[in-house]
Amino acid sequence: MSHLIFDKRDWKFLMREHLHLERLASFPGLADYDIETMEAVFDEGVKFAVERVASVNEASDREGAQLIAGEMKTPTGFPELWAETRAGGWTAAPHTPEFGGQGLPYSVVNAVYEAFNGGCQAFTMFFQLTSGAGHLIESFGTDALKASFVERMYSGEFGGTMCLTEPQAGSAVGDARTSATPLDDDTYAIEGNKIFISGGDAEFYANVVHLVLARVKGDPEGTRGLSLFAVPKHKMNADGSIGAYNNVQVTGIEHKMGINGSPTCAISFGADGQTVGYLVGVRGNGMAQMFQMMNEARIACGLQGVALANAAYQQALAYAKDRKQGPPIEDFAAPSVAIIRHPDVRRNLMFMKAYAEGTRALAAKAAYHVDVVVHGADAAERERSQDALDLMVPVVKAYSTDKAFRVCELAVQVFGGYGYCREYPVEQYLRDVKIASIYEGTNGIQAMDLLGRKMRQKGGALFMGYVQELAGFLERLSSIEGLAPVHKALAKAQGSLGEVAFWLSSTAAKDRALAMLQATPFLELLGDVMVGQLLAEQAEIATAALQARCGTARPTLEQQEADAEVAFYAGKIAAALFFANEVLIAAPSKAKAMTSGETAALNYAF
Amino acid sequence: MSHLIFDKRDWKFLMREHLHLERLASFPGLADYDIETMEAVFDEGVKFAVERVASVNEASDREGAQLIAGEMKTPTGFPELWAETRAGGWTAAPHTPEFGGQGLPYSVVNAVYEAFNGGCQAFTMFFQLTSGAGHLIESFGTDALKASFVERMYSGEFGGTMCLTEPQAGSAVGDARTSATPLDDDTYAIEGNKIFISGGDAEFYANVVHLVLARVKGDPEGTRGLSLFAVPKHKMNADGSIGAYNNVQVTGIEHKMGINGSPTCAISFGADGQTVGYLVGVRGNGMAQMFQMMNEARIACGLQGVALANAAYQQALAYAKDRKQGPPIEDFAAPSVAIIRHPDVRRNLMFMKAYAEGTRALAAKAAYHVDVVVHGADAAERERSQDALDLMVPVVKAYSTDKAFRVCELAVQVFGGYGYCREYPVEQYLRDVKIASIYEGTNGIQAMDLLGRKMRQKGGALFMGYVQELAGFLERLSSIEGLAPVHKALAKAQGSLGEVAFWLSSTAAKDRALAMLQATPFLELLGDVMVGQLLAEQAEIATAALQARCGTARPTLEQQEADAEVAFYAGKIAAALFFANEVLIAAPSKAKAMTSGETAALNYAF
Repeated sequence: MSHLIFDKRDWKFLMREHLHLERLASFPGLADYDIETMEAVFDEGVKFAVERVASVNEASDREGAQLIAGEMKTPTGFPELWAETRAGGWTAAPHTPEFGGQGLPYSVVNAVYEAFNGGCQAFTMFFQLTSGAGHLIESFGTDALKASFVERMYSGEFGGTMCLTEPQAGSAVGDARTSATPLDDDTYAIEGNKIFISGGDAEFYANVVHLVLARVKGDPEGTRGLSLFAVPKHKMNADGSIGAYNNVQVTGIEHKMGINGSPTCAISFGADGQTVGYLVGVRGNGMAQMFQMMNEARIACGLQGVALANAAYQQALAYAKDRKQGPPIEDFAAPSVAIIRHPDVRRNLMFMKAYAEGTRALAAKAAYHVDVVVHGADAAERERSQDALDLMVPVVKAYSTDKAFRVCELAVQVFGGYGYCREYPVEQYLRDVKIASIYEGTNGIQAMDLLGRKMRQKGGALFMGYVQELAGFLERLSSIEGLAPVHKALAKAQGSLGEVAFWLSSTAAKDRALAMLQATPFLELLGDVMVGQLLAEQAEIATAALQARCGTARPTLEQQEADAEVAFYAGKIAAALFFANEVLIAAPSKAKAMTSGETAALNYAF
Repeated sequence: MSHLIFDKRDWKFLMREHLHLERLASFPGLADYDIETMEAVFDEGVKFAVERVASVNEASDREGAQLIAGEMKTPTGFPELWAETRAGGWTAAPHTPEFGGQGLPYSVVNAVYEAFNGGCQAFTMFFQLTSGAGHLIESFGTDALKASFVERMYSGEFGGTMCLTEPQAGSAVGDARTSATPLDDDTYAIEGNKIFISGGDAEFYANVVHLVLARVKGDPEGTRGLSLFAVPKHKMNADGSIGAYNNVQVTGIEHKMGINGSPTCAISFGADGQTVGYLVGVRGNGMAQMFQMMNEARIACGLQGVALANAAYQQALAYAKDRKQGPPIEDFAAPSVAIIRHPDVRRNLMFMKAYAEGTRALAAKAAYHVDVVVHGADAAERERSQDALDLMVPVVKAYSTDKAFRVCELAVQVFGGYGYCREYPVEQYLRDVKIASIYEGTNGIQAMDLLGRKMRQKGGALFMGYVQELAGFLERLSSIEGLAPVHKALAKAQGSLGEVAFWLSSTAAKDRALAMLQATPFLELLGDVMVGQLLAEQAEIATAALQARCGTARPTLEQQEADAEVAFYAGKIAAALFFANEVLIAAPSKAKAMTSGETAALNYAF
């Protein structure tokens, strides 16, 4: 049986009822994708993820990727699954037909990729990274470069990586020492060492195209001097056949806490002979180009959190319904009941549900904005979506992954001793998902991006735009029967958020360190509010649906047990109420802590 | 170099300045232990932990314990280290000289065992479990049983285990099916299967004595019908030599997320022939007897959290001082600085310090109460300590281990990508420490113990006693210069705690499920307050120490850098201020959430 229990109903709710993805078909370029077609693709993708991708997850963890005599060996089942994934068109799904892609809306790809990540995060990384690298070449490369690589990367014949980190330059990418020396034919000789390169090689790749940040000799220090190069493992012949070895060597792989099936490589360029690289885009513009791709990479990373949080919630839920332990709370003399009857277990499950489904909605909304930015016909609408997206991305990345770790931890607790054992999948989820808080910019870096960059972008207009949107929703929410506690908590949280934003902006002007001390709590508060709003929107929809279906927005347990649709909508209302009471209620107190000016962490000489 | 960086200074502060362990020497039975002697034992123990115990931690994780053809093989270095641990008297340290122990105060043993757990949790479990099992026989066994086993267990010649869990009976121990059939000679034939038995066997044990909960045929269902039996792997001959095999078979070991060096065993009794067991204590009283030992077992478990949290904090601190990344916040054009200069990293470190040192103080205080209960001359004082201990224990166990997981997680984040790799010890800390939230009663069970049992014990007198003690401290704290924010936050938190306790007690009478829904948040709030108080007490002491040493309780960074003692005390004040602003400040909001009567988790049919 597959370890992946995937909640298709929640995604269909997002597509049809919450985000109204049928709107996408009105965009030029997406006319082929009416809602039925999107759902059909989604259904097929989820089926493949549950039946096939999930089947390699255990081997991925137990065997891991291995570097044997310099050759990469991925876990049992990966090569076959790679071939099937290519054949199904999943590697190329989001890309333009010009390069062999299906041109699917990102919103649908995002939904399918959640299932893939839930099935096997380490496997899914291979094609998500390849896709990102290919997209960089498509966006900034010369026609010749595009012709050589892009379609073959999207199709999964070639792999791709992003090579940023060096041993002395982790989060501080600008310190990179890898060098590029111009050669006579417009190419460059690349020399240097990169580390932490995910998916650096695989036996199922015919070639690997590394996107390498390097400094052309003589160019300025820091990030401004970095250029982007496409560096294939094997050079390409003029006829498109794979040519000579390009002296790109995987010198080692890391032994990690999780995602063992994804080789985290140390790669040397030019150590045993010349390594040729091709400039991608504008010299000195490497970081800026990478940043243009960063939004999608970071949403993809947040989606890994969403995927494992939801997988963990579903596993814990199924276990809690099955496992009998202890008498019911009403009668200690009665026989043992399923642990889902115990209030403490229900609290854990509700916590998991609210965060797992709430961050899923957040990632889905971000994906929707990506579609608008790429396909929207109206320039003003595109700009609004770009602004919304820029503000959301650090939250999608950091909040979703940090909360996913919490959710996976609770799944382990619900399983008790079994949760700590490899026999059940939840301990692997917990280990695997931790990486998502670290790579693509640690969550601390995301918080600094939010506070130091996104909040200041366009003079604060991104944040103001969000607050206005929220205000509009709050006005509507105020009149929804039964959701008054949610409205009250969200409105207060909105006030707290504004208060903190004001304090941060005035404090940053005089004491930058004091303001930056609150970067992480501020990101969390914004995440609380964004997720709180999305859960409230879902509760609003569910209220109407329930009233239509059974005449009340508060169906009894019996009514819910008799009708899965009634239970589904009741769950949406429950999650919003729970989240308001558990999380949003804390916003004023969080604001108080953030704006107190407490400086202990700065004034102690550790 | 040892992975364990152990903060002896903080423990000496606890011993001499905070808890005043010199008081222990006034107790009958502890007259030999003046403070200098205790410190000498502590120094020796820490040295052994850092130099020797820590040396097996990597092998413990990578090799794990292995069951090969039915024989247990522990990781490389364990057998030699076991011999050294025995020779050093560490296995018998807390026990009475009557059975070969050193009769050390538990307070000192606790401090040393923190270092042992920090060095290698999986190894330390072997003798902590053996010690607990031996103590049960010492407390309840017949003279003959004691003579056979106790000294040989305390000395580490024999191992010991606690066998409670069965496949169908995890947290619900009363469902155990293992049976005991009376034999002619006052012994019993034991039949059944136990799982999750930590340290179930080792090649360095000459014999293993399992303390097994089983039901004598015909005795009542549930926990009331369970009796405790000592069941040796090999029977003992009359002359004290080891006799015939007793048909106690380790049938398998779990593959786990962490503590791999500690074999988690499935054990069958009586499957291949008769297994003889000896009744320990009173028939039908097995659970009650186990519960009398539970406090120390749960403190020991909490101490594992304390140990790994502190080890993780020290590792992250050392790394943050060493690792250069990114320019300082004052000048983005300057060269990279050590990451400890970045505000977000300082926040993480301060968070870690406050929880790691705060829960250490909590465990130390609990250990002090154990000493009073065992050795105190005055009956009223003993009773007060017993009451304080009973209330604290679920908090020591659950709060310390849950926060330890947070602290270890942050250590991984501080290390960035390296934190996810096995090259550094923090990812192992994170995996190892998770078990402490699960075994010895999951943290959910602890919360129910606190709310359903401890809060009601003696008509609520335990809690009232604690609140009175806190009120006395608050009065003193109110006049300490510079700690007004701590006083204010702690006083408000005290009010919130009282409010919630009142609400819970009146709610439980009419709606038990609604009250129990708040068991976990209530335990957390009590933990916040207890730890907040201890950190405030430390800040009070530090204020006086700093005023005496440098005339101000707010020394500059330069003053701190010039004098490690000044820095130490400044750190105590910083931790209290930080904790008040980050954690205690949230108490009123937590109280509001808990007492709102929100029932979403109960009313949704998952």
